[in-house]
Amino acid sequence: MEKLWANSGDSHLVEPDDLFDRSLSRSLAERMPRSVKDLDGGWETIHVDGQEFRRRLPRPGRRLTDENGLTVPDRAPGANDRKMRLLDLDSEGIWAELIYPSLGMWTSSIRDPELLAAGARAINDWAIEYQRFSPRYVSAATIPFLTVSSAVAEVTRAANLGFHAASLPVVPLIDGDDWHRESWEPLWTALAETGLVVAFHIGSEPHEASSRNGTYYRGPGGALLNYLETTYGGQRAVAKLIASGVFDRHPSLRAIVSEGGATWGPFVADRLDEAYRQHASAVRPRLRRLPSEYLYENVYASFQHDRSAVAAVTAMGWRNVCWGSDYPHIEGTFGHTQKTLHELVGDLDPATRHRITQGAFQELFPHVPPAPDGESSPGPLDAAAR
Amino acid sequence: MEKLWANSGDSHLVEPDDLFDRSLSRSLAERMPRSVKDLDGGWETIHVDGQEFRRRLPRPGRRLTDENGLTVPDRAPGANDRKMRLLDLDSEGIWAELIYPSLGMWTSSIRDPELLAAGARAINDWAIEYQRFSPRYVSAATIPFLTVSSAVAEVTRAANLGFHAASLPVVPLIDGDDWHRESWEPLWTALAETGLVVAFHIGSEPHEASSRNGTYYRGPGGALLNYLETTYGGQRAVAKLIASGVFDRHPSLRAIVSEGGATWGPFVADRLDEAYRQHASAVRPRLRRLPSEYLYENVYASFQHDRSAVAAVTAMGWRNVCWGSDYPHIEGTFGHTQKTLHELVGDLDPATRHRITQGAFQELFPHVPPAPDGESSPGPLDAAAR
Repeated sequence: MEKLWANSGDSHLVEPDDLFDRSLSRSLAERMPRSVKDLDGGWETIHVDGQEFRRRLPRPGRRLTDENGLTVPDRAPGANDRKMRLLDLDSEGIWAELIYPSLGMWTSSIRDPELLAAGARAINDWAIEYQRFSPRYVSAATIPFLTVSSAVAEVTRAANLGFHAASLPVVPLIDGDDWHRESWEPLWTALAETGLVVAFHIGSEPHEASSRNGTYYRGPGGALLNYLETTYGGQRAVAKLIASGVFDRHPSLRAIVSEGGATWGPFVADRLDEAYRQHASAVRPRLRRLPSEYLYENVYASFQHDRSAVAAVTAMGWRNVCWGSDYPHIEGTFGHTQKTLHELVGDLDPATRHRITQGAFQELFPHVPPAPDGESSPGPLDAAAR
Repeated sequence: MEKLWANSGDSHLVEPDDLFDRSLSRSLAERMPRSVKDLDGGWETIHVDGQEFRRRLPRPGRRLTDENGLTVPDRAPGANDRKMRLLDLDSEGIWAELIYPSLGMWTSSIRDPELLAAGARAINDWAIEYQRFSPRYVSAATIPFLTVSSAVAEVTRAANLGFHAASLPVVPLIDGDDWHRESWEPLWTALAETGLVVAFHIGSEPHEASSRNGTYYRGPGGALLNYLETTYGGQRAVAKLIASGVFDRHPSLRAIVSEGGATWGPFVADRLDEAYRQHASAVRPRLRRLPSEYLYENVYASFQHDRSAVAAVTAMGWRNVCWGSDYPHIEGTFGHTQKTLHELVGDLDPATRHRITQGAFQELFPHVPPAPDGESSPGPLDAAAR
């Protein structure tokens, strides 16, 4: 079976247990996200800045287990070793990755601006070391979002450190100013000026320990319903940027939604266009172009297994569909990446295949060297897929 | 320009002002949904069972206005006249319609089971008269949902009255038992036994006057964001039926989501399949088939303008995409139906065109006579579109 190489628009590091202890003062470190498992191993408690989130573990005593009950260290022992990770990637056929934190995703629930700013710096100083180790690692900088000034400051610092992507939660803060509000304009300006790609990972809504922690449904079908729910936050986030005119004011700014699937793109584009035309009298700001044009040009999305994602490119014309591995998480393709890639894109024409597996990612991160089989599908073919 | 005839999976009646006064006791009638406009005409108040919902009117003094500020009586004066309505349909090229109430959609915010049961009977006794006037009218029965027994009783009564569809809100009651809970099993059984199609119209979430009334976002882009938000309720509703095994237990049951677009279907199918496989250890109940198979066979959806909806059929294989007019509402195609239909399906092969404009609807409502141009595209071609 021919090996298909693909870039991943959605991958993760797993933080070492002592990350914050070694980089922050004790008073700050103890308030950063950490997981404490119950003695009987059935549940864990995530502690974040004085809040506690209880969640059931899929298998007793194991976190991030797969169907066979294997933990990340069991199933992807190299995930957090810069060198061993490359061996996993080579084995799977994954070339370059956009890499988010794991436990660091919980920083979206921090409420103290000083803590979040310091914690983000600590995460970023650690994450950039991966990128410096190999050009195949594209680390997403964690951006503090509790004040506009701290966000802008970290974007600037991250750009200077060499980051090419800035991770923002899909919602900045419950009851705070959401992404479509004018107050965030300096952030979009900073991102556009530095050229950092906005990286929205699904499931990054701030959680309120008193109410919900990502579990929206219980009872029959709850696991499926909660998984479906996670995608909507990413769709909303980019819709906010489109509808409030962020891409109108910053045409060079680009955003990717990771792990939320891709076929929603043409759907949301049509939905926003219908509102724009049929509710015209209520629409403000007016945009220079139709909402769908911003979605088709400025927005990208990564999917793992979705059968319909290819047709979103070939039949609906949304060229910005990236594949993603979600390595090393259980929603991802680790262990069956080649099987998945062959099922998804094995029979496609080379130009479309290249676009989905490599081209869209390369468009966001042109500094990344081409994959081993990338030479045979040069850039011009990407344009032909349009 | 050749006239294209289409069935509509989403249309509305507009209640006469005295509907409830003439059919219910005064004490009940005054608690049913009614609209009272401010003297200056800028806002209206919807009164429902002791709750009040304020909403801004698109143009001063006008309700349900279009871009030119025209009200329903101005722009579709025949909407609520059984005979004149057919003239509008003929003129637009709309053949048969699945018809919901308008103000009656607010019944989802009623909290008193007795009131809702009596109000639903009043609405249904009025709505069935349309269907009896012409086989082109397929009225959706309003089903009370505050108790399981009242829902089952009205389904039975509606089936005896001749209804072919049962309208349910996309969420039955905030903080109540949601559609995926076991308590609703007698309702699904009654619907499957009577053969009524479950009709979910988007935007039918119960509203809480103290918190939200369908306005989720304010500020820049709010109109677009709120319109996008409306589609998610319909997606969730059918996902609840799929995930909790309703279609597994009742394979003949079918549901349509009206006005929520259509391209979400293949997307949600893929999303649920990914959860079903990757989170297998947490999934219960297990289903006999993949979630996507129920979505592709038991679930239908109507769209108005979406460019990508055709490709959901042709490239993603979801045959259950219906067109819908939303007549006479402003989100709909009234006044430009032929233009919209020609843009959407004018260049399609006859089989696919028939499937979207007529066939999927006919599959749900086989008692409806074929459209004037329906003879030329007989049933077998529908199967060929698969």
